Amino acid sequence: MSKDLDKIFKPKHLALVGASNVPAKWGSFLLVNILAGGFPSERVFPVNPKEEKVHGLPCYPDLRSLPVKPDLVIIATPAATVPGILETCGELGIRHVVVISSNFSEVGEEGARLERELANIALRNGIHLVGPNTMGVVNAQVNLYAVGAPMQLRPGRISFVSQSGNVGANMLGWAMNQGIGFGKFVGSGNEAVLHSEDFIEYFGEDPETDLILAYLEGLDDGRRFLEVVNRITPRKPLVVLKSGRTEEGSRAAMSHTGSLAGADEIYSAAFTQVGAVRVDTSQEMLDLAKAFTRLPLPRGERVGIMTLGGGWGVLATDAVAQSGLKLARLDEEVMRVCDEHLPPFWSRGNPVDLVGNIYIETHLAIMEALVRSPEVDAVVVLGSLGTGTMIGLNILVSQNLIFQMSEDSMKAFFADLRGRNEKFLQKAVELMREHDKPIVFVEMQFIGEEYLRDLEAGRTVIFTSPEKAANILAKMLRYRKHQERTLTTG
Amino acid sequence: MSKDLDKIFKPKHLALVGASNVPAKWGSFLLVNILAGGFPSERVFPVNPKEEKVHGLPCYPDLRSLPVKPDLVIIATPAATVPGILETCGELGIRHVVVISSNFSEVGEEGARLERELANIALRNGIHLVGPNTMGVVNAQVNLYAVGAPMQLRPGRISFVSQSGNVGANMLGWAMNQGIGFGKFVGSGNEAVLHSEDFIEYFGEDPETDLILAYLEGLDDGRRFLEVVNRITPRKPLVVLKSGRTEEGSRAAMSHTGSLAGADEIYSAAFTQVGAVRVDTSQEMLDLAKAFTRLPLPRGERVGIMTLGGGWGVLATDAVAQSGLKLARLDEEVMRVCDEHLPPFWSRGNPVDLVGNIYIETHLAIMEALVRSPEVDAVVVLGSLGTGTMIGLNILVSQNLIFQMSEDSMKAFFADLRGRNEKFLQKAVELMREHDKPIVFVEMQFIGEEYLRDLEAGRTVIFTSPEKAANILAKMLRYRKHQERTLTTG
Repeated sequence: MSKDLDKIFKPKHLALVGASNVPAKWGSFLLVNILAGGFPSERVFPVNPKEEKVHGLPCYPDLRSLPVKPDLVIIATPAATVPGILETCGELGIRHVVVISSNFSEVGEEGARLERELANIALRNGIHLVGPNTMGVVNAQVNLYAVGAPMQLRPGRISFVSQSGNVGANMLGWAMNQGIGFGKFVGSGNEAVLHSEDFIEYFGEDPETDLILAYLEGLDDGRRFLEVVNRITPRKPLVVLKSGRTEEGSRAAMSHTGSLAGADEIYSAAFTQVGAVRVDTSQEMLDLAKAFTRLPLPRGERVGIMTLGGGWGVLATDAVAQSGLKLARLDEEVMRVCDEHLPPFWSRGNPVDLVGNIYIETHLAIMEALVRSPEVDAVVVLGSLGTGTMIGLNILVSQNLIFQMSEDSMKAFFADLRGRNEKFLQKAVELMREHDKPIVFVEMQFIGEEYLRDLEAGRTVIFTSPEKAANILAKMLRYRKHQERTLTTG
Repeated sequence: MSKDLDKIFKPKHLALVGASNVPAKWGSFLLVNILAGGFPSERVFPVNPKEEKVHGLPCYPDLRSLPVKPDLVIIATPAATVPGILETCGELGIRHVVVISSNFSEVGEEGARLERELANIALRNGIHLVGPNTMGVVNAQVNLYAVGAPMQLRPGRISFVSQSGNVGANMLGWAMNQGIGFGKFVGSGNEAVLHSEDFIEYFGEDPETDLILAYLEGLDDGRRFLEVVNRITPRKPLVVLKSGRTEEGSRAAMSHTGSLAGADEIYSAAFTQVGAVRVDTSQEMLDLAKAFTRLPLPRGERVGIMTLGGGWGVLATDAVAQSGLKLARLDEEVMRVCDEHLPPFWSRGNPVDLVGNIYIETHLAIMEALVRSPEVDAVVVLGSLGTGTMIGLNILVSQNLIFQMSEDSMKAFFADLRGRNEKFLQKAVELMREHDKPIVFVEMQFIGEEYLRDLEAGRTVIFTSPEKAANILAKMLRYRKHQERTLTTG
């Protein structure tokens, strides 16, 4: 049974101790972001003895003066004042506290002593304490953004614990830019009481979480972490970005959060054993986040590739082989469909090279043949979304040379292009559902981040290189194999 | 001495045989892109016996009817007609021809026979022939865009040969989006006469080229390639993206361009020996393109890191160590500057953790101290550009809660933010020049591709992850070491 952390992420009322009107203070950021994020202001209580109003809300001198007992208290006052405030929480029966304040164990022995005091008060009073020295907590599903950076996420079913506030905040910023839906986020800070594995365990049992992400620098209790993860991964994937991979990185981690990072190979082996999916970069973590929540898991290693041009097909083949996947054999039916739609000199093998074919019907027919084939476990589609764009732009430019194209007809043209792409992606979503196999897109033509996000619309994945696509499919397959093993043995 | 290919990239007059008004034809694309690209229309001669005008230009029935002898002929007619047209070029004394037409050796034995015929005619007549089956040629410095995709590049001093048209076109598209300046591009196509190494050799001697990029699938004459590259790399870097890394990829390459790809380890060893810089992905190639043309080469492996937040510092340290670089020791002067600007509990080591410090003066002072230090060969700056953004956005949001901010004051605010970042980057450019050391930025906060490109303004490099920054610095250092070796031994 995980700890009851619901009130950290779904408080009915929350108090912010140290709320401030001074723009550059955390007590200001936090309140501003909470309100701007859409959390109902009548459920938010600023606390500060020196203010009557903070950012337009009535302010209270201390926790005892509040008209209701808040189920979550967020503290952003100087370190020395935090133990006293925490004692008051205990006396008032408040069991969920987030300590944003810094200057604890991360700054030396005096801070460490203060942090031990916090932990003792929390344990004596049964307080679930997040932090100290944390970036805060988010729950996009209830518009709770008690964090230092302003944000508004697409609500989703991914939950994320980060041992670094800046890594966490930047990941959420990217998720926002890339349209990835998130649910709960917590910066675990110095982990005086609640540890990363406590949040992972909670997310594991949380019915609103389908996928768990963790940024880790070190673990105090590796055994408990592994035991927790081992229980979760048969049901939900956990993606881990673990820094301190090198000796130098370990030392930097130690000076950052004071955690003992430990030998990297031991971590890697342990992660594999308990089915955690390890990634090397934050972008890879976000790519996997999209893939796990939008695509079916591949059931095997055989990849069918279709490509608008030969060069990308070669790069994709390399990428597939290097990531440990295999090229699928094209069966008779796939060959028949390709023969029907492609010129006689087509590649007659995998990758299927469409040699610049511009007809959406051809692309659709071959994608469908590949995904239907019993020889194929996953499909990689290169350049199909862009094909209309290139030709279209050419035509557009050519028409402009002959007569001035009106703005309306230009808009109509781009709407038409977009319609083609959406038709294509819609078909892919249907085929994935019908055949329970992933189809991933790789698009390399003049597509910006924003257009890509709009096209994905939260339901497909478009990569910007074949290497990324192959790597992500390989990691999904490895997770699926782990699941299968635990199902048969456990 | 390289072959005289000047007229391919700087023709006085060019003729396009097969010019067409039919939008979906190559003969239309090409002309449209040439004209839209800004090449003077009075120097362009469409040839097509069935048309009187093509895209507004007077059209000629054949090459013999042209009012001038063009120094470049581009052919986009059906394969069977190409030998005859090439014979005419020979008779007219035209020595530079680009054959866009496909259906040669890439489609089978009949096509291969036709391709041998082309080669024979070209050799007999001393014609420098590009292709067949090529995407075309570009020279951004003279607004020549004789290619299948519409584009307009920032003119620069990078030249690029690609054995794949689609890889080439997409790379140029990305370069355009990312504001990377390019000079000459050529798709080498089936390489019936001119091979990749001929273009590399030409770029090596080209006074308008500072950096050479090559996408290769295979080499017909590996010995000549290595001999050419060996002569170039002491003066100019060559960055190679070589596909067919795996057995599967080799087979795909063979079916794509018919080239024999060969064992990858042999290529890798050979590239290292002659000082070519090998990359794994197209994005890495573009990152290196920016770095080589905008930054001084690092003279050693000692990297100084400054970071707005500890977590990113740990990831950057890992990245530096994994790419074979080392963390620099902070000397007394750096320690003094940090002590002066940072709180007493600062990390007192490399990475220098600025713990969210928001003062641009602090960031500037520490960047300057690091680059001045004799212990530091390269500086990585994480989060400094974003810091104003995050705080600023918070303040902005907070003000909006209290009073409606006018559009003008919002604009003024963002202009101010931008000014801070530009000041920062300007200082970095000056310091790089003064100390001849690279400073690279890593920025992870809410920065889109477009904003990033504008900030870089063609003179600095901003990466979106510490791993990319470390990898690029390591590859630049490896190239510099090669240069040093050849200077002392050769």
